[in-house]
Amino acid sequence: MAARNVSVLITGANRGLGLEMVKQMVQCQHPMKKVFACCRDPDGPRAEALQALAKKHPDIIKVIQMDTADLSSIKQSAQQVGSLVGTRGLNLLINNAGMLIKSIMQETSAEDMQTTFNTNVTGPMNIMKEFLPHLRAAAKASAMPGMSCSKAAIINISSLLGSMAAVKETYGFFPAISYRVSKASLNMLTLCAAEELKNDGILCASLHPGWVRTDMGGEEGEIDAPESVQGMMKVMASLTEQQNGAFLDFKGESISW
Amino acid sequence: MAARNVSVLITGANRGLGLEMVKQMVQCQHPMKKVFACCRDPDGPRAEALQALAKKHPDIIKVIQMDTADLSSIKQSAQQVGSLVGTRGLNLLINNAGMLIKSIMQETSAEDMQTTFNTNVTGPMNIMKEFLPHLRAAAKASAMPGMSCSKAAIINISSLLGSMAAVKETYGFFPAISYRVSKASLNMLTLCAAEELKNDGILCASLHPGWVRTDMGGEEGEIDAPESVQGMMKVMASLTEQQNGAFLDFKGESISW
Ligand SMILES: NC(=O)c1ccc[n+]([C@@H]2O[C@H](COP(=O)([O-])OP(=O)(O)OC[C@H]3O[C@@H](n4cnc5c(N)ncnc54)[C@H](OP(=O)(O)O)[C@@H]3O)[C@@H](O)[C@H]2O)c1
Ligand SMILES: NC(=O)c1ccc[n+]([C@@H]2O[C@H](COP(=O)([O-])OP(=O)(O)OC[C@H]3O[C@@H](n4cnc5c(N)ncnc54)[C@H](OP(=O)(O)O)[C@@H]3O)[C@@H](O)[C@H]2O)c1
Repeated sequence: MAARNVSVLITGANRGLGLEMVKQMVQCQHPMKKVFACCRDPDGPRAEALQALAKKHPDIIKVIQMDTADLSSIKQSAQQVGSLVGTRGLNLLINNAGMLIKSIMQETSAEDMQTTFNTNVTGPMNIMKEFLPHLRAAAKASAMPGMSCSKAAIINISSLLGSMAAVKETYGFFPAISYRVSKASLNMLTLCAAEELKNDGILCASLHPGWVRTDMGGEEGEIDAPESVQGMMKVMASLTEQQNGAFLDFKGESISW
Repeated sequence: MAARNVSVLITGANRGLGLEMVKQMVQCQHPMKKVFACCRDPDGPRAEALQALAKKHPDIIKVIQMDTADLSSIKQSAQQVGSLVGTRGLNLLINNAGMLIKSIMQETSAEDMQTTFNTNVTGPMNIMKEFLPHLRAAAKASAMPGMSCSKAAIINISSLLGSMAAVKETYGFFPAISYRVSKASLNMLTLCAAEELKNDGILCASLHPGWVRTDMGGEEGEIDAPESVQGMMKVMASLTEQQNGAFLDFKGESISW
């Protein structure tokens, strides 16, 4: 993403990693051309920091209402973004919004499973589908060869907890079964989308942000949001068709399924 | 499962692989002590073959109504089975019922995702939870050391299509994104359950039956149901604590996540 004639959409952009992404995308040396910062309640108290940031960068940041668990809200925002980007399309879609329930299986209800799956998996799938025309437009409008996040890409924010290989060492102290299931699902979704969309020139990858001190990660997290996002931005800028379908951490290292 | 003083419960036992499992468990040299053959409509036309088989083996087969997508139906059947097995408990639970939608992401609806997830993942989770007291009872009642399917075990019938490693080679000719997501989820659920229940002495594993000529597998399948089930029965009989959390095919070979 060196040449920053790039438009990006981020879900869950009002706090945590999403808000930090918006910050770094406008406050860096070569800011993005357009950042669509989505949140479910743009006028509520939880979006104040985002709104303040948007006021400072009115040409770049556009705050968009989107509840990622609600298809009609997704459709509406896709229409709104479409009318703003036109034939240039949307270069980068970051599915960042997510939720976490920490319980073990024996304390997990069917509703916990459904809600987590709906927010962390079906939501991102609906968003990929509804924004696909804009991503395709961006791929078509780009003169760049190959695949990249400056051309047309979907980045799904997953988690190490979605790695099957990591269960044995980590389940004991951090069960979160509905979350693990949802992030494994998201990884599968990303992989399948990578196959399905490769002929459109759209890159798809899953990123693990590290264990980050946000509301979700808690105070015991290993890194802070700026470090995580700096890492992920660097990784995103480095992606090519070689990494289509990959599952990488914020340092660019590959994670086992 | 050499010493066959074993009780087993099979979901989706009215046709396909489930029905074949029931057959082989009663028609072999050392039949099971008790087979709880579950199906959602025991009195309907799709359960006729199962009912006929049950009539031939009234001491072994007990047909049980269970819609695996309906929690109250699961609770009811767990109560019924509990009253039949008492303190001997249930040795082996086989989550076999499942559904398949074949579409690519672009043609998959939120409802497809939810329904498939509910049937193939939340259903098995609810069943594991509701039958857990009976599995624990069996583990406690058993004098056998270690873990086995004759003592206390959960076998989830998964699929190679749930393997992330298999997506690149197979997505093109068999997308089925909602199904792949659900089976990857089921694998994660199995792995987590294996960790959560190991101190109870309950073994958990995922099995891939092969590509089988059933209603789901279609006529182009590579093997028939008897061959698949023979293989899976052998694999189940061989499982020990070494395979807790494993993902194996009907030949006993390990499948990559
Ligand atoms: N923090 C970590 O250690 C860590 C580790 C691995 C992966 N992750 C992943 O990283 C992503 C961001 O996590 P975070 O740490 O920044 O979490 P966070 O601080 O809890 O923030 C979650 C964000 O998602 C939004 N969100 C949740 N459900 C939504 C919905 N239905 N519609 C719209 N927005 C919704 C929240 O909006 P509201 O303010 O409206 O609730 C909030 O903006 C998540 O996908 C998470 O799973 C985090
Ligand atoms: N066949 C293959 O090639 C293959 C390959 C890999 C994995 N598998 C897996 O193997 C398992 C059995 O597959 P199969 O080939 O025997 O499929 P099948 O012939 O389509 O039979 C599916 C069975 O699941 C039952 N079922 C579905 N939803 C149910 C619900 N909500 N409540 C109760 N029962 C329900 C069906 O009952 P009804 O008759 O009431 O519909 C039927 O008994 C599935 O988990 C499948 O994913 C199969």
